[in-house]
Amino acid sequence: MTEKAFEWPIRVYYEDTDAQGVVYYANYFRFLERARTEWLRSLGVDQVRMMQVERRIFVVVSTHAEFIVPAHFNDEIVATAALGALSRATFDIEQKIFRGDVLLLRSGVKVALLDADSMKPQRVPKALFEGN
Amino acid sequence: MTEKAFEWPIRVYYEDTDAQGVVYYANYFRFLERARTEWLRSLGVDQVRMMQVERRIFVVVSTHAEFIVPAHFNDEIVATAALGALSRATFDIEQKIFRGDVLLLRSGVKVALLDADSMKPQRVPKALFEGN
Amino acid sequence: MTEKAFEWPIRVYYEDTDAQGVVYYANYFRFLERARTEWLRSLGVDQVRMMQVERRIFVVVSTHAEFIVPAHFNDEIVATAALGALSRATFDIEQKIFRGDVLLLRSGVKVALLDADSMKPQRVPKALFEGN
Amino acid sequence: MTEKAFEWPIRVYYEDTDAQGVVYYANYFRFLERARTEWLRSLGVDQVRMMQVERRIFVVVSTHAEFIVPAHFNDEIVATAALGALSRATFDIEQKIFRGDVLLLRSGVKVALLDADSMKPQRVPKALFEGN
Repeated sequence: MTEKAFEWPIRVYYEDTDAQGVVYYANYFRFLERARTEWLRSLGVDQVRMMQVERRIFVVVSTHAEFIVPAHFNDEIVATAALGALSRATFDIEQKIFRGDVLLLRSGVKVALLDADSMKPQRVPKALFEGN
Repeated sequence: MTEKAFEWPIRVYYEDTDAQGVVYYANYFRFLERARTEWLRSLGVDQVRMMQVERRIFVVVSTHAEFIVPAHFNDEIVATAALGALSRATFDIEQKIFRGDVLLLRSGVKVALLDADSMKPQRVPKALFEGN
Repeated sequence: MTEKAFEWPIRVYYEDTDAQGVVYYANYFRFLERARTEWLRSLGVDQVRMMQVERRIFVVVSTHAEFIVPAHFNDEIVATAALGALSRATFDIEQKIFRGDVLLLRSGVKVALLDADSMKPQRVPKALFEGN
Repeated sequence: MTEKAFEWPIRVYYEDTDAQGVVYYANYFRFLERARTEWLRSLGVDQVRMMQVERRIFVVVSTHAEFIVPAHFNDEIVATAALGALSRATFDIEQKIFRGDVLLLRSGVKVALLDADSMKPQRVPKALFEGN
């Protein structure tokens, strides 16, 4: 990965935190998906058109995350997304969350493209990530 | 309403709380819907069959809630549901949340029955609430 | 209310929707709180300082909402906030959610200011809403 | 792992699903934490006492999950939890989610025990998992 990652700013609200005073661990996965969605949008991918017209959807196949430093209520953080390995039927997205220069979280997801009716895997078009 | 309300027990997990150390206000509405869903199930209403076979769905038209005493992580609470006013196109459900004898929250929702395709209101069958 | 309401743009992600294909009813209350938080910030209210230094927190006492038109995945919507009635111990916030010119939701909340340790109500300073 | 895993039944509500008609990927992590919390309770671990009296909290250090088959609205599923590797400062929990005999998800988390004030790691007492 030498290209610069896509960056998406996120504000932490009460809804994101829990009684330990920090962001609830499952909610980081929401933040990560917002960054992926906006990264795909920045590449010209229209997920509504995909679902309604082409009947194709993206589905998370697997994920992992390391929780390094917690985020707190009101923090301004940044979630990143960058294309990792691309195979015939899936692609990997490498993601991080930062608060300023501090790395809070490191994650990766493997995503498949499915036919929304048959739920069968579709070939992932390489052109998807070429941004035009 | 003289009949006894339906009761559904709920355990408060970290996911439900926020950094103020109590249940996040929007999450009580999740608890209330769990109680409504289970109350409907207890009356023999099969929401999956309704949606998939009959193409009819329940939709919340309006709601109100008074937050009286907060619930905390690990609390065992009970959400209730009881039929309120029933009109041609909507019905009201009166709901409360208790921790033991302590009333934590008082709420009400107005629910409509819609055609899932046209999203047009359907007549609410009175028999729905008679539990056959 | 003659003054213009504060406006906060929100994008609808998958996390906000449910299997009926629209935003899950409880999640609108998250959107409404984001708008309130950002409105307070725009008035110079620092909720982190309030909680940590002054040990005072805002708490929702009651709320109501009318769900008029549903929002869908990927919609760009706007949540508003405007000061309503202000009493000694509470204040009301009038809120709406729009998609373009279409009114999706109308809501109100009554908020109290509490001492974070004793949980006793505090007098709400009128200056809070004067924006300087 | 030869011992039988702890099992916790979960009902899928609308709150858990998204507009793809299945459980939203981040919400499985909520289900997994419910099972861990109940497993710890079954071993006699009182997390409220731990936090309030002993000032010690459990924190998820890392996690991974494979999403094999999706769960739908109204499904009755079971989340499991079983102790994996135990080191001085962390322990692993191996988890699965089933619908009947169908494996929906396979996951693991690494958990640390922290001092709630200093956020420094504490030695994990082996006796914790012996259920006395």
